[in-house]
Amino acid sequence: MFAPVYLDWNATAPLEPAVREAMLPWLDSRFGNASSRHEYGRQARAAVDEARAQVAAAVGAHATEVIFTSGGTEANNLFVKGAAGLMKPGLIAISAIEHPCVREPAKQLRRADWTLREIAVDRAGLVKRTDWLAVLAAKPVLVSVMLANNETGVLQDVATLAREAKEVGAWFHTDAVQALGKIGVDFRALGVNAMTLSAHKVGGPLGAGALVVDKRLELAPLLAGGGQERGLRSGTENVAAIVGFGVACELAAARVSGENGRLCGLRDTLEAGLATHGMRIFSAGAPRLPNTVFFAADGVDGETLVARLDRAGFACASGSACSSANPEPSHTLMAMGVERETARGAVRVSLGRDTQERHVVDFLACLGQQMNELNNLTAVAVQ
Amino acid sequence: MFAPVYLDWNATAPLEPAVREAMLPWLDSRFGNASSRHEYGRQARAAVDEARAQVAAAVGAHATEVIFTSGGTEANNLFVKGAAGLMKPGLIAISAIEHPCVREPAKQLRRADWTLREIAVDRAGLVKRTDWLAVLAAKPVLVSVMLANNETGVLQDVATLAREAKEVGAWFHTDAVQALGKIGVDFRALGVNAMTLSAHKVGGPLGAGALVVDKRLELAPLLAGGGQERGLRSGTENVAAIVGFGVACELAAARVSGENGRLCGLRDTLEAGLATHGMRIFSAGAPRLPNTVFFAADGVDGETLVARLDRAGFACASGSACSSANPEPSHTLMAMGVERETARGAVRVSLGRDTQERHVVDFLACLGQQMNELNNLTAVAVQ
Ligand SMILES: Cc1ncc(COP(=O)(O)O)c(C=O)c1O
Ligand SMILES: Cc1ncc(COP(=O)(O)O)c(C=O)c1O
Repeated sequence: MFAPVYLDWNATAPLEPAVREAMLPWLDSRFGNASSRHEYGRQARAAVDEARAQVAAAVGAHATEVIFTSGGTEANNLFVKGAAGLMKPGLIAISAIEHPCVREPAKQLRRADWTLREIAVDRAGLVKRTDWLAVLAAKPVLVSVMLANNETGVLQDVATLAREAKEVGAWFHTDAVQALGKIGVDFRALGVNAMTLSAHKVGGPLGAGALVVDKRLELAPLLAGGGQERGLRSGTENVAAIVGFGVACELAAARVSGENGRLCGLRDTLEAGLATHGMRIFSAGAPRLPNTVFFAADGVDGETLVARLDRAGFACASGSACSSANPEPSHTLMAMGVERETARGAVRVSLGRDTQERHVVDFLACLGQQMNELNNLTAVAVQ
Repeated sequence: MFAPVYLDWNATAPLEPAVREAMLPWLDSRFGNASSRHEYGRQARAAVDEARAQVAAAVGAHATEVIFTSGGTEANNLFVKGAAGLMKPGLIAISAIEHPCVREPAKQLRRADWTLREIAVDRAGLVKRTDWLAVLAAKPVLVSVMLANNETGVLQDVATLAREAKEVGAWFHTDAVQALGKIGVDFRALGVNAMTLSAHKVGGPLGAGALVVDKRLELAPLLAGGGQERGLRSGTENVAAIVGFGVACELAAARVSGENGRLCGLRDTLEAGLATHGMRIFSAGAPRLPNTVFFAADGVDGETLVARLDRAGFACASGSACSSANPEPSHTLMAMGVERETARGAVRVSLGRDTQERHVVDFLACLGQQMNELNNLTAVAVQ
């Protein structure tokens, strides 16, 4: 089987072997419904409880604050719609670079008479202080600012933003999907009211995520029914996925500081090589995730470059994977004021646990070759 | 490991070995995000497409009518809230015996000025003709009546109800979660506008379900974001679960007629035995699923009996597993006009592919013994 070098860890990460091991019994003889009151059910319930404790411990939260969902998208929708659903319509403020699964539900609220305001970011992709203060003055009820951006990897100062938002009486949510496992994430230290996590970005399985949420925030369930997850998320619990999520969080938390250093080293190699190819690195001046490099060469089409790299054996992304059905240039780059032409050339390389120095070196060599070929093609076309 | 005989297939079914086999590569080297535009992503996308065709074929629908969700609960919520979300408030009518994941979202609509009406059922659990006609006269906009009830196994004449509902301009939905794999289910023949399926009830994994839906019905997405599933259900696709769902549907459809006959035979043995123990069988006179027997002995507490059976090596249910956190007597039985005292004694036995004649015989023997012990206890207490 053709297996390119995987450099797209922000789209999804392969399952950690220990996670798969932990999941398998739940896809086999331990198949019970966690709500059933017999041996099979009790085993499933105990496993879900243990995973809840693991997820909570990994992010410095209390187990009772963890609501399991089917993934990050559902958790973000649950915060936005669930919180708004029990409030009088007001102002919801989100950063201009949120993932579509925060932005789109926030837009849907406009049908229910809410006002949506986007908080501007500067050219590096950080929330603009002046705009933030103007937003606070408008007294938002709900605020959502992501901890780490999926494209640029930019890290916001969420602790400060959360404190200031709470001072004006807002409920503050952060999407920590891309941060978990790459930097330390602490619910209490960040001081947020709600936080979104997703298992498949940290070596856990698809099919599990969580909204970690302050119990004082009342939520209307998005999925109503049997009353699972304290009535906030009905539906038979996906036991195997939840078990895998728990183990993945535990592993991620244990490894994060070691991996962080290692990935920073790889990133330095990568960025030095990109500089020699004349690439522009987005958000280079801002605090960023250790694994993410978003770059572009003027005059090159990112889609084309990514397709060539793929054929040559390197899997990376031209934009956010979750919205790559959309051929528009990156919303994040547009919000940062990057010119449309440059944004079209954007390529994201995101590294992970299996990435080795030689993968980065080989990638740079391949990139150089592809750039040469593209430049020759252009030269021929111009003749 | 203590492994009781499993007689709770309506709560969840063990994973079919062929389904697990089909899923494993997607938990291993084939880990891509189906939205990624590289080799890993394309493989995942192709697998999701194939599963969509399998699910559609199993229920006589077109692949483009299948929207994958995280399970039956989400699909039911998507129909109720998604359809209502783009309409002017009106009347929603649901049968009085719907699963909580239809009933609760319908109740939530009342916050958005909808009127909710429950359609009465008779003592056998079938929709009451007179009440149905009265409901139609009130011009409902949305109607939901389940194909097979999870507790009694009662089958409604959905084809007739759907035709009549559509004549008054309503959109008709049926929850077919318990019907799939136990009786033939055909979207076109039923003539419904929308239908809910769940993988884990048919030997597929937890974490996948579907709303099969007429494309003329506009839906607001419950989970908004990256735009997956034609924009109707965002979130990174749970590839392994979807692949398993596809294979499970294919197997279920291929086996349904053979299994149906076999299960009817086992049910006859079971019911004959229950009669000798003086048990009352709910909905005995109505068309029912071949695998489900819901019964009670007067004066016995169902919870207690189920706990004793569990310790003695037989896993069955005292009520709907999905709402068994709720100590109230079965909503379905209450709607059927069963006395509260009798309903408290209810026990559900649901059979499946692994159930053999000897399991049923052993269960009956054990039940007899438990009943004797309980009767002796009562006799002692009364002395
Ligand atoms: C920042 C961010 N939030 C949320 C999500 C959605 O998470 P999931 O794929 O678990 O639905 C993603 C996935 O791309 C993401 O990058
Ligand atoms: C009739 C019926 N509908 C819906 C559901 C919910 O399906 P899921 O467990 O996939 O959320 C169930 C599960 O018990 C059910 O029995």
